Amino acid sequence: MKLMQLYASLKSDLQAIEDDMSRTVTSDMPTLSEASQHLMKAGGKRLRPVFVLLSGKFGRYSLDTVKKVAVPLELIHMATLVHDDVIDDAETRRGQLTVKSKWDNRIAMYTGDFIYAKALTVVSELGNPRIHQVLSNAIVQMCIGEMEQVRDFFETDQSIRNYLLRIRRKTALLIAISCQLGALATDAPKRHSDALYRFGYNVGMAFQITDDLLDICGTEKAIGKPPGSDLRQGNITLPVLYALQDPALKDRLLAEIRLIRQSEGAADSSAAVRIVRESRGIKDSEKMADRYIAKAVKALGELPDLTAKKNLAEIARFVAKRSY
Amino acid sequence: MKLMQLYASLKSDLQAIEDDMSRTVTSDMPTLSEASQHLMKAGGKRLRPVFVLLSGKFGRYSLDTVKKVAVPLELIHMATLVHDDVIDDAETRRGQLTVKSKWDNRIAMYTGDFIYAKALTVVSELGNPRIHQVLSNAIVQMCIGEMEQVRDFFETDQSIRNYLLRIRRKTALLIAISCQLGALATDAPKRHSDALYRFGYNVGMAFQITDDLLDICGTEKAIGKPPGSDLRQGNITLPVLYALQDPALKDRLLAEIRLIRQSEGAADSSAAVRIVRESRGIKDSEKMADRYIAKAVKALGELPDLTAKKNLAEIARFVAKRSY
Repeated sequence: MKLMQLYASLKSDLQAIEDDMSRTVTSDMPTLSEASQHLMKAGGKRLRPVFVLLSGKFGRYSLDTVKKVAVPLELIHMATLVHDDVIDDAETRRGQLTVKSKWDNRIAMYTGDFIYAKALTVVSELGNPRIHQVLSNAIVQMCIGEMEQVRDFFETDQSIRNYLLRIRRKTALLIAISCQLGALATDAPKRHSDALYRFGYNVGMAFQITDDLLDICGTEKAIGKPPGSDLRQGNITLPVLYALQDPALKDRLLAEIRLIRQSEGAADSSAAVRIVRESRGIKDSEKMADRYIAKAVKALGELPDLTAKKNLAEIARFVAKRSY
Repeated sequence: MKLMQLYASLKSDLQAIEDDMSRTVTSDMPTLSEASQHLMKAGGKRLRPVFVLLSGKFGRYSLDTVKKVAVPLELIHMATLVHDDVIDDAETRRGQLTVKSKWDNRIAMYTGDFIYAKALTVVSELGNPRIHQVLSNAIVQMCIGEMEQVRDFFETDQSIRNYLLRIRRKTALLIAISCQLGALATDAPKRHSDALYRFGYNVGMAFQITDDLLDICGTEKAIGKPPGSDLRQGNITLPVLYALQDPALKDRLLAEIRLIRQSEGAADSSAAVRIVRESRGIKDSEKMADRYIAKAVKALGELPDLTAKKNLAEIARFVAKRSY
């Protein structure tokens, strides 16, 4: 089953969100508008808006209200991606386009800042202080998560717990509050917004683990980038950490990672990827993702039996099985 | 008269703000904390907190309330500076420290994002939706101003109006809302917060014009960087635009700016600086700054005769006369 089919019932509301996002990032500055529209066109799964919309069904749903939560959350996600691009641009730049990519870096950084600020103007229209609190705290955690990822690059000695804490901040929190804020904005009972937060958190964890698995097991066609990109960057993910626990593979894998590190991104990560693929790291990571999905579905138990609840469960199951 | 003497009466409240800023940017991440503390120690004029404190005197002043406006405003200013540093780091990097400065760039970008997000958590403690609206709108404008500056680099054909619009967004707005929000947060009458906004806007314009003058006329010792830095970056400021209006100097100055541009930052800007220094651009810019100061002082006319009003007028006059 495709994610799009799950979205079918939300189609018109999602389109309204898409239109609002596009309007929000439009400005008189041609470069800003072009960069933003480029990002809009690149699309994405729009997971956060979907979770806001579905969670909003547990309160007094109004498109106008949920829009003002969904649009900023997806824009904040987008701003994070643009800032990650600044780093990526910096790497391509080691090749040839030095001046041009420097220019792009500025644009990318300021475009990220702009989209982020625009997102906040939309939230502020709701006039709900609680939403500002939840949101700003989550953004702080996300920034720390990004820094942790940089800190942990090529750190092969890190614990599974360290990895989980990092993806919690980097990914799971924003999905958790997407669910929570959809409920808060529509005045759903606290018991429900709490359950939705737990649901989102666990789905977010599973989502990131699956993402990290796809970077090892996926095909370039399916995931839109060559597999092994994480390792090339130095990002040591769950399947790799599990593979490193296998005494028969550990030394070979460490040697490959050392080679990648020494080459400063120029080396091929495919030998390392092959080792991880053959390891128990894949199965163990899948099991971990499944455990998070089970917890997410369990959190839904607190909620009344609306269609939205069924949809959330379907998306959760889809997340762990997706191949893109 | 030194700015510090004007600040004497605010000393203990400013110290409380300094302590809160420091606490706010402290985190468990060593790199984040180090980068943030480094910025804290670098200090600054703390103009925005001073304006918040003084403006707060026109309402029901409470240190606890004005702190929650002053701390985030100064932190947002600081975050902007860190993001500007990302660009500067990129330039130093053309020399030798490629990998190291790349690392610093990430840190600088994420530190900026972190400080910015932390600032918002402090504002959200006030639970005042109007403040979020004013603030997020101003940040959007600031981002556009930063982009305009990039767009206008080496643009010698731009109008004075274009320059003024750009510094309005880049600098004056944040100072304007520092005054406005000090008043809003303490429930001062709207007439007063409007007058304070106008005061801050005009002082901010004069402040940036003086900054741009100092970059041409200041000594390295006084301004903490070699004069002519703006021109080296391609930032065409008011004294330069006025100098370009002089037919006797125009062609020589254009040729010098062209040289700087072609050398991509490697060239010396001192010949161009000398031409501007000899031109009427200095006097004309000083006059323009004085006009803004006069408007700022006039805006104070709307306000009751408190000591704070006298202090604001003193700071305004100081801004146009400062040499650092």
